[in-house]
Order: sequence, then structure tokens, then C-alpha cells
Amino acid sequence: MENDRIDTGRSETEQAIMDATLRALAKHGYADLSIKNIGTEFEKSTSLLYYHYENKDELLLAFLDYVIDLYIATIDPEADDADAEIRKFVGYVLPTEECTGEHATPPGLDELEQFQRVIFELRTQTIHDEDYRQKFREMESYMIDTFATLIQREMKAGRYREMNAEMMAENLMAFLFRSLDVRVTGTRPESAQAMRESVYFLLDNVMPTGGQPGDVATRDADDDA
Amino acid sequence: MENDRIDTGRSETEQAIMDATLRALAKHGYADLSIKNIGTEFEKSTSLLYYHYENKDELLLAFLDYVIDLYIATIDPEADDADAEIRKFVGYVLPTEECTGEHATPPGLDELEQFQRVIFELRTQTIHDEDYRQKFREMESYMIDTFATLIQREMKAGRYREMNAEMMAENLMAFLFRSLDVRVTGTRPESAQAMRESVYFLLDNVMPTGGQPGDVATRDADDDA
Repeated sequence: MENDRIDTGRSETEQAIMDATLRALAKHGYADLSIKNIGTEFEKSTSLLYYHYENKDELLLAFLDYVIDLYIATIDPEADDADAEIRKFVGYVLPTEECTGEHATPPGLDELEQFQRVIFELRTQTIHDEDYRQKFREMESYMIDTFATLIQREMKAGRYREMNAEMMAENLMAFLFRSLDVRVTGTRPESAQAMRESVYFLLDNVMPTGGQPGDVATRDADDDA
Repeated sequence: MENDRIDTGRSETEQAIMDATLRALAKHGYADLSIKNIGTEFEKSTSLLYYHYENKDELLLAFLDYVIDLYIATIDPEADDADAEIRKFVGYVLPTEECTGEHATPPGLDELEQFQRVIFELRTQTIHDEDYRQKFREMESYMIDTFATLIQREMKAGRYREMNAEMMAENLMAFLFRSLDVRVTGTRPESAQAMRESVYFLLDNVMPTGGQPGDVATRDADDDA
């Protein structure tokens, strides 16, 4: 499994601390997280945690920086095949049709669902904490800007039709967020399938040159007519 | 203000407890909420809280039932003008264009933003708590089913074109959720404006009979061509 991991330039110790933090967050949740239970997940001495980070807050902000670096490593605005790069990222976020769990290898982590749940819970802290807000703003803006850049490159190459790339990126992201949300919260799993259809309708019909644009909800009716 | 309040059939005392719970949640957040600080917000004796609810958990589940009843009272699947009913609800959720705060009166509460923030934070508990998951599932399903019912009624009346009403309801809700999310978390306020444009593109162009359907992102390009 180690070979599949994305290298974010962390030292071996820093990487081990990030892994321990993820495991501790997954087990205890944000509310009950302590340096002590991060230490329990860490193979080396807990005192080493204090050598690297002054306190829990500093460690968690470093963890968010690590997550940002993972996102940055997951989608490349300079990728040769921009459409494939968008689809690869979409594949990480959306569930597989059959829910077999056979999606592509998650970004440097064995348990994608666990990772998504931890990030989701940390994101709630944006309500109370300006530092968290800034980190998540950076993450979301990176994703939307990268989507827009990739879309623009396909437009220039004539493979996507002319469109407002920023608006398309915002809409794709809204569907991906809702899919992630309903699966992490468990509130409405059937909405995840609707989001999947909506995303692939955009990718397969609306965006490509020569596609038959329209709306995923009105398309079926048009076909029947 | 009292006159604008939606009647959810609670007794005066129950209503006062719900109001106190909302204020306490807004002030302290879920993590630091206690019966004691709900009691501080309550004009009457704290012992009256225990008379009605055995503990904090029971009170919070009653609060979620109250929120569900507020949602049910906010949008009526039997409304005479189905399109107007959808637009009224959309008006509650989306920010005004100018962000002047001059949106319609919130459902029975003076501080809509505060209310949305409290609900957003409670919703995170769905990750850990099956009871919360069920309540939020009920809320979201009520909204999406009601949207679908209203859309179907406009289709039958010939005012909306033929479409997959459930899929349209899911997509409208995804945009509304993302708008709510970025404003509550403060992560990306500019996304809220994009969501507003996307929702009104569906309502004004895609859904009505005789509209010019397409996609909000590709529409501008078509206009230029």
C-alpha cells in the first residue's frame, strides 16, 4: 500500500504524525480529540508530537495543510488530458454505480470514506474558527479554479463547447459536495445517485463539442417525445 | 414580530422552550450546550424544562421535530400557485442579490442566518447519531418530495415542460444546499452567487414551457454566438 501513497514532501516523522492524526480523528471525532489519543495512534513517543507542534490546534492546522497538499496532488491543472483529469477526480468523490467500492485508489489513504468523514467534520469548525475557514476556502477555491482551468483548456482544444468555465466548475462542485455530504451524513443516500447522474450528464452531454446539451431532468422527456 | 410567527401547534411553554434552545445553541454551539444554559435563556424555571424533557438529548430531538414542523409550514405541496410556492422557499434560502438582508420574513424566526447556522451545526451530528440522521432524512426528503410534487403540478397545468420532476428537485436542492453551506461556513461566499444564478436559470429558463432550456454555464456562450 505504501507505494500508492502520494508524496506531499513530508518527512517520515511528519507523515507518521499526519497518519496518526487521521486515525485519531476517525476514532474519536473532533470534539474528543486530544494530543493523548493522537499519541496512542503514533508509533513513536508522544513527546515527539510536542517537538513538532506546540499544541493540538497547531497540529490540526498542520493536518489541514497536509489535506490541502493531498488535494493539490490529486488534480493537476497542467495534466495532458484535461477531460481525463476531471473524470479521475470525479471518480474519487462519487460512489461507484454498483457501490462495490471498486473506485480508483484514494489519494494516499486506504480508507477514502473515513478520510472524507474526517474532513467533513473538521469543516464544521469553519463556523467558529477563522483559521479553519481560510484553509477550507483555499481547498475549495483550488478545486473550483483547477476545474475551470481544465475546462478552459478543453474549450481551447475544441473538445468542449464554449461555456462559462467558472460557472460550470461551480455547478460540478455543488453536485460533488452534495454527493459527499449525503453519503457522509447518511441523510439521503438516494440523492448521491441523482448527483452522479447529474455530473455525468454535464461531462458526457453538455460539455463536449457535438454533445446534445440540455438539462438532465428535462432530457428524458425530450427523448420520449 | 410575534404576529409573523408560524404556528406549529406548540403550547406557549413548549414554544418558549424551543426559542430558548435556539438562542442557547446560537450562543454556545452544540458542543457546549447544556440544560443549564438553555435554562438561562428560558424566562421560567429550569425545573420546567425537566418537567417536559427528561434530558438534553430528548430536548434536542424535540427541537429537531420543531424545526421539521417549521419546514413543513414553510412550503405547501397543495399551494394554489406551485411555481410561486417554489420561488418563495428559494427566496428564504438564497441570499438577496445585493446582500441587503431584505429577503422575505424567515419562517417564524427573526434571525434567519442564526437559525440556518444552528441547523447546519446540528446536522453534523448525523455522523454519530442515528436519531439525528432520521430527523434530517425526514427534513430533506420532505423538501425534495414537495419540490417534486409542486413541479409535477405545474407540468400537468402545462406551465412547466415535461421533465423528471424528482431529478429537477434533487438538483435545485443541491444548489440550495451549497448556497446555504458556503454562507454558513463562510468558505466561499462567491459560490453562493453562482448558485443563485443556477437556481434562477432553472426556474426561469429550463422549467417553464416556452423557455429556452440549456445549461447556465453554456447559455452565455450561446447568446454570444
